[in-house]
Amino acid sequence: MNDANRDLLDDLLAGEHRALARVISKIEDRSPGYRDLVSALHEHTGDADVVGITGSPGAGKSTLVDKLAKHYRDEGLTVGVIAIDPSSPFTGGSVLGDRIRMASNVGDMDVFFRSMSARGSLGGLSTATADAVKALDAFGKDVVLVETVGAGQNEIDIVKAADTVAVLVPPGSGDDIQMLKAGILEIGDVFVVNKADMPGADRTVQELREMIHTRGDYTETGHHGDDALQVVEPDLAEEDGWEPQLVETVAKSGEGVPELVEVLADHVEYLEASGTREERARQRYAEEIRTLLREDTNRLLAREIDRRGGLEAFVDAVVARESDPYTVADDLVDPLAECLAEGSN
Amino acid sequence: MNDANRDLLDDLLAGEHRALARVISKIEDRSPGYRDLVSALHEHTGDADVVGITGSPGAGKSTLVDKLAKHYRDEGLTVGVIAIDPSSPFTGGSVLGDRIRMASNVGDMDVFFRSMSARGSLGGLSTATADAVKALDAFGKDVVLVETVGAGQNEIDIVKAADTVAVLVPPGSGDDIQMLKAGILEIGDVFVVNKADMPGADRTVQELREMIHTRGDYTETGHHGDDALQVVEPDLAEEDGWEPQLVETVAKSGEGVPELVEVLADHVEYLEASGTREERARQRYAEEIRTLLREDTNRLLAREIDRRGGLEAFVDAVVARESDPYTVADDLVDPLAECLAEGSN
Repeated sequence: MNDANRDLLDDLLAGEHRALARVISKIEDRSPGYRDLVSALHEHTGDADVVGITGSPGAGKSTLVDKLAKHYRDEGLTVGVIAIDPSSPFTGGSVLGDRIRMASNVGDMDVFFRSMSARGSLGGLSTATADAVKALDAFGKDVVLVETVGAGQNEIDIVKAADTVAVLVPPGSGDDIQMLKAGILEIGDVFVVNKADMPGADRTVQELREMIHTRGDYTETGHHGDDALQVVEPDLAEEDGWEPQLVETVAKSGEGVPELVEVLADHVEYLEASGTREERARQRYAEEIRTLLREDTNRLLAREIDRRGGLEAFVDAVVARESDPYTVADDLVDPLAECLAEGSN
Repeated sequence: MNDANRDLLDDLLAGEHRALARVISKIEDRSPGYRDLVSALHEHTGDADVVGITGSPGAGKSTLVDKLAKHYRDEGLTVGVIAIDPSSPFTGGSVLGDRIRMASNVGDMDVFFRSMSARGSLGGLSTATADAVKALDAFGKDVVLVETVGAGQNEIDIVKAADTVAVLVPPGSGDDIQMLKAGILEIGDVFVVNKADMPGADRTVQELREMIHTRGDYTETGHHGDDALQVVEPDLAEEDGWEPQLVETVAKSGEGVPELVEVLADHVEYLEASGTREERARQRYAEEIRTLLREDTNRLLAREIDRRGGLEAFVDAVVARESDPYTVADDLVDPLAECLAEGSN
């Protein structure tokens, strides 16, 4: 690590928020040296409780996250919030979000709020989120809240960086509950019907209860790759025996927030007592390693392809029937295989 | 290539259906030597018109495909059908499908019908589909129909093996049209409202027309990776200037099938005249190469990880804070990078 990064790391570990912000920017931008920084952060991590908060747009996530942060602060805990907006390069949403959100916690630097955007690379965003969580964890934040803007597959990948996943559902949203079947249901440890004072809330609670009860029906339909490097989606909540909890809140007034905090604490206690916390951490690390290996080898191959005239040159040969995709792949991968074979002797 | 595969290839090229079936089985099973076979097939490909047919379950795809096949046969063309069922390892659906489907074309071996299933590996299924299409193409089938069972992301990846994509929509399916926004809409060259004699068909046609008209709104929201090896989703139908056509059919009675065949032929003509056919082929080959490179390097790394004690050993070190994911990735990928650097000198 160069001196500048070493100083930056020391400042972060010493509790300087400005250093924390700069480290997260480097992670987001994948600035030179960011890998060394994250590597060095790792040994200081493992103490924060990381809560992922997802749910469809309009479910009231931002408001609830603000209220949660305030509640934790009132209990004397330090809090970091990362809001992830996969669509922000297109909408500029996260910038706007920053401005609106600052208002509620202005002057309280112990709620460190930071939004991150895709910057054109969704694959990288879940890695960047996991890395940013490490920065907040190493910094010493007691609670890290990871909030997503939407609730699609990208968001599911992102909240996997969390120990506990809370899924927000707005009332009267039959459609949204249908949508939950598509993947969110499986990852929720806690379901929150927010805006519980609105019409339709009771029915939503009822439908959610039924769904949680029968969710085994949905979790068996996932497809797993047969390749050791493919991402296997662990059906976290199912296999660890935790019965997903349902909490009703009215984030605007703060109603239900203490109950939610209690349920989140119950889940952390459960994770510790059952050994599930370490199991989840292991699964996360395995997935982080797999993701990095994929990204790094992809980058390596892309460079090699460039060096050999670019992908288009290979495609030309395939179109001209002088080569074919398998021959091209062998041509590029065989040298690597030989190299590994030599190295292992 | 070994002698057995050489004989098999010769038999396939000589027009033996039994050899064709065996080659496709080898492709599906990824039997030893299947790569050499597909490599050797490649130079004999490029003549078939490949039509992908997708749409939500219940849209009547099987019946329509049967009628299409019959129509092409009546015109004197040879036809191959591959039905892809990503979920079949779980439901056994494709086996049942085989039996039911055989009935309509029994005795006419020039409609070669074959179903393929995921066998636990979805990633591999789109590769296997593309490879099976090559087998049918090299065999000399004039028309190859690739039919998917459902209409999710996996199916979208699968029908990309086609020159022309037809999307079936059942009438009165407001939900289905909503679902189309999620990705199917962008890949359809032809939309078919099947069961057009059912109530609600007019409204579905109307809604689809509006959607096709405004689909530019949806096609701009895709996320592209910044990595040369990530799959970039080409917005095929948009960029080549073909206005997606809408056809109404009643597959059961055969109504509308001649019109559909005509529109499909128009599209092929358009592809040829505009040069889009080659452009699509190029995009497909580029994607095939990328996919194979990913699969091959993943396999290579998985073996190397095994050789070095398995992924769990690396995870142990990360949990113990003796290592971290970036260090593990560097540890595994750096030797490959050095090797390539040496090879290029």
